[in-house]
Amino acid sequence: MSFARLQDKINQMQNPTVVGLDPDLAHIPPEILDKHIAKTGETLEAASHAVYEFNVGLIDAVCDIVPAVKPQSAYYEVLGPHGVMALNQTCQYAKSKGMYIILDGKRNDIGSTAAAYSAAYLGTTKIGNTELTPFTADALTVNAYLGSDGIKPFIETATKHDKAVFALVRTSNPSAVELQDKMIGEEKLYTLVGDLMEEISKDTIDKYGYTCVGAVVGATYPQEAEFLRKRLKHTFFLIPGYGAQGGSAETAANAFDEKGHGAIVNSSRGIIAAWKKHGGDYATAARNEAIIMRDQLRKVIYK
Amino acid sequence: MSFARLQDKINQMQNPTVVGLDPDLAHIPPEILDKHIAKTGETLEAASHAVYEFNVGLIDAVCDIVPAVKPQSAYYEVLGPHGVMALNQTCQYAKSKGMYIILDGKRNDIGSTAAAYSAAYLGTTKIGNTELTPFTADALTVNAYLGSDGIKPFIETATKHDKAVFALVRTSNPSAVELQDKMIGEEKLYTLVGDLMEEISKDTIDKYGYTCVGAVVGATYPQEAEFLRKRLKHTFFLIPGYGAQGGSAETAANAFDEKGHGAIVNSSRGIIAAWKKHGGDYATAARNEAIIMRDQLRKVIYK
Repeated sequence: MSFARLQDKINQMQNPTVVGLDPDLAHIPPEILDKHIAKTGETLEAASHAVYEFNVGLIDAVCDIVPAVKPQSAYYEVLGPHGVMALNQTCQYAKSKGMYIILDGKRNDIGSTAAAYSAAYLGTTKIGNTELTPFTADALTVNAYLGSDGIKPFIETATKHDKAVFALVRTSNPSAVELQDKMIGEEKLYTLVGDLMEEISKDTIDKYGYTCVGAVVGATYPQEAEFLRKRLKHTFFLIPGYGAQGGSAETAANAFDEKGHGAIVNSSRGIIAAWKKHGGDYATAARNEAIIMRDQLRKVIYK
Repeated sequence: MSFARLQDKINQMQNPTVVGLDPDLAHIPPEILDKHIAKTGETLEAASHAVYEFNVGLIDAVCDIVPAVKPQSAYYEVLGPHGVMALNQTCQYAKSKGMYIILDGKRNDIGSTAAAYSAAYLGTTKIGNTELTPFTADALTVNAYLGSDGIKPFIETATKHDKAVFALVRTSNPSAVELQDKMIGEEKLYTLVGDLMEEISKDTIDKYGYTCVGAVVGATYPQEAEFLRKRLKHTFFLIPGYGAQGGSAETAANAFDEKGHGAIVNSSRGIIAAWKKHGGDYATAARNEAIIMRDQLRKVIYK
């Protein structure tokens, strides 16, 4: 069923957006960090506590209007094991508020190692006779450079646990052209990657017509999104690059099917750091920006 | 200086091997796990303590004859935040024993997110006025599908802290052919990736002639290793697939330059799970296998 749970939530809220929880310390109001430094000193632990508190405020502010969050693992790993603990707590808190969690880790490996990553984020680990959940997520971003060996273990785990992955297909950064746009015969590399992902997941199509392997498709390249939407009819898209990276609602709209399904648009800084631009309480600023984004997307998608 | 510290260590021990610390629970002697379950129950914490104890035994057994370890992050992440703590403790212990640490995380992202990953594993994080080290590693594996934007932040951090990265160029799995071997004009995709990595790191060449961006090149494809060795004269190679995955000393030998420099060969299961094949104490079995591997490589490389 893969992305059906997510699409259900999007339909219910009429809002195909995901808030990127990228808690770069520069985005966190200084008084939050200062409070935790006062308790545990200038430590990675203090910063991790600040990150968690910041995220709780954001989740509380948007969970009734936004269906999903996307924590970016790098901003937690940069705080060491304490940061990874804050990541896990953030996921657990988002889940308790009913949100769908896309963990942005861009993991990739092969065979038993890929299986370990998939168990870590989408499955369970068995210790003795006890099944335990290492991290709480509904979907994980993955990188497909290693080929289908590297993705199949994720499909297996996702199928078993009603979870999903998003494979990097066409990213939103300027140098994406260096490899992803290279021509292989008549097609660009990213098209081949997209085709391969749809092919290997074709047995997992859900009630909306989408498989459990989605695709990351940058919103700064509207023609790519439009082309891929037509080509990959069974692939759910994650669209980064909205807002801070220059993507607009109009360009993101290309990623949706004729029913307004099949994609979710991410904004990170634009929402979580809105307080730096507009002032006031960070949670209120985030909610206001999330409403603006939702309304912009509604206008172009649910016509 | 990038890989010079590693090459120095290899020269000193006359041993271009790295032991892969992939502590799948199936590789750990059951009595170690049982002991920790007796203390903290069937928990991820108990398993993480078992992993750390297992690794300490392995590091103690090989640190005087093997220059480097390569912890595979997936096997720690699958135990949740406690597992990530065991990863960090393992790295710190290996460092205290003078070993070079290649963290196999295959991380990848762009811009400030890539910078966060590079700080997490190769650099520092500043909290208030205090510089802290989130994870202790000397090199990190990375995935270059996003192009140079995704690698340059790692080069910056590596240059500043005398660290390095290994980019996936040609991997050792069967489906590597699906994308990596595709022809782009006259060249295969992996050749383009290798060329790009050497080009963007050309200002970081060390005393041995290698830049701070190495390449992962599978030992199960000897002709690829030979071809890439000739083409990428300034790229240090990490050769996985030795032993359990079918690579031999003879095929790995192709990855070294005429001085016997410029590469390191990994074995994981073949060494850490040697006790399952040969019986006896796991640490002794690992040391014995490490000696056999070293001697096999010495024969073909330092002729």
